[in-house]
Amino acid sequence: MSANPELLNAIRSIPDYPKPGIIFRDITTLLGDARAFRRAVDELVQPYVGMKIDKIAGIEARGFILGGALAHQLSAGFVPIRKKGKLPDKTVSMTYSLEYGEDEMEMHVDAVKPGEKVILVDDLIATGGTAEGAVKLLRQIGAEIVSACFIIDLKDLPGRKKLEAMGVEVRSLVQYEGH
Amino acid sequence: MSANPELLNAIRSIPDYPKPGIIFRDITTLLGDARAFRRAVDELVQPYVGMKIDKIAGIEARGFILGGALAHQLSAGFVPIRKKGKLPDKTVSMTYSLEYGEDEMEMHVDAVKPGEKVILVDDLIATGGTAEGAVKLLRQIGAEIVSACFIIDLKDLPGRKKLEAMGVEVRSLVQYEGH
Repeated sequence: MSANPELLNAIRSIPDYPKPGIIFRDITTLLGDARAFRRAVDELVQPYVGMKIDKIAGIEARGFILGGALAHQLSAGFVPIRKKGKLPDKTVSMTYSLEYGEDEMEMHVDAVKPGEKVILVDDLIATGGTAEGAVKLLRQIGAEIVSACFIIDLKDLPGRKKLEAMGVEVRSLVQYEGH
Repeated sequence: MSANPELLNAIRSIPDYPKPGIIFRDITTLLGDARAFRRAVDELVQPYVGMKIDKIAGIEARGFILGGALAHQLSAGFVPIRKKGKLPDKTVSMTYSLEYGEDEMEMHVDAVKPGEKVILVDDLIATGGTAEGAVKLLRQIGAEIVSACFIIDLKDLPGRKKLEAMGVEVRSLVQYEGH
């Protein structure tokens, strides 16, 4: 299912979590495997080497783990996109759709300057509701989104297509069919 | 107040947040500044270069940003210490003290193997309740804690001393007097 057996083998699949019929793809085993984690970060970074990237925007919470490593490797700043009420200064916010209901994410208004080149990162893209909200939020304060990257793409779900329809390039390291 | 003016200048101080009389030290401005972020990660990593480190344990959520970068730089695995209910497989948990009341943190039971060498990382140490809980949790599953590192130490608060009394070396890049 993937071009990348080392990474695929490092991901733990948990059947019937969080509910019957769903297979949860758990990346904590990949993160904890020094070789696999190093490889995942290096492969996420590779397409952007030599490009001028100003900021890596990571989505709370697993996107922070990858985003910190990507920002350091690409000599970019890091921007946290957080759940509501976690940031201490003036924010912009965006409501986004979850499978059931809605939630709200925030970013500091001064986190990105207009025209800055930003890469969005999270561990996984599925329905794309969170990533879509993050793209809108970043564009609202003038970011130029160069790309969005993920370890996992659940490719039967519409996340990738949703972002591409917004004009955002999407990259992933491992693809799964099914949910 | 610090040996490190570049980092000190990159931290935003927000008076009377989250309540009157408290100055909140906001590291998002440091994270967003590519040079300062790179320098912070490089200085956090420097004491451990050449040591055999198995895992970096990061405390949710800001510790994830630093921990991902540290794990990649030190060719270690990354272990998330999360708020209760966020991890999908079998966990161990620890109750810890906050300024008012208690909270609970969790880690996967298989996140660290007995005897593995671990560095704990978070953005800031203050009263030390969270870090103390994380040290206990890591030791419960057999981790050997090599060191704990932070960007900021609020040195009038007892966090550093609390960890040192547990036999944990504490490092920080920027120290503030007062709270």
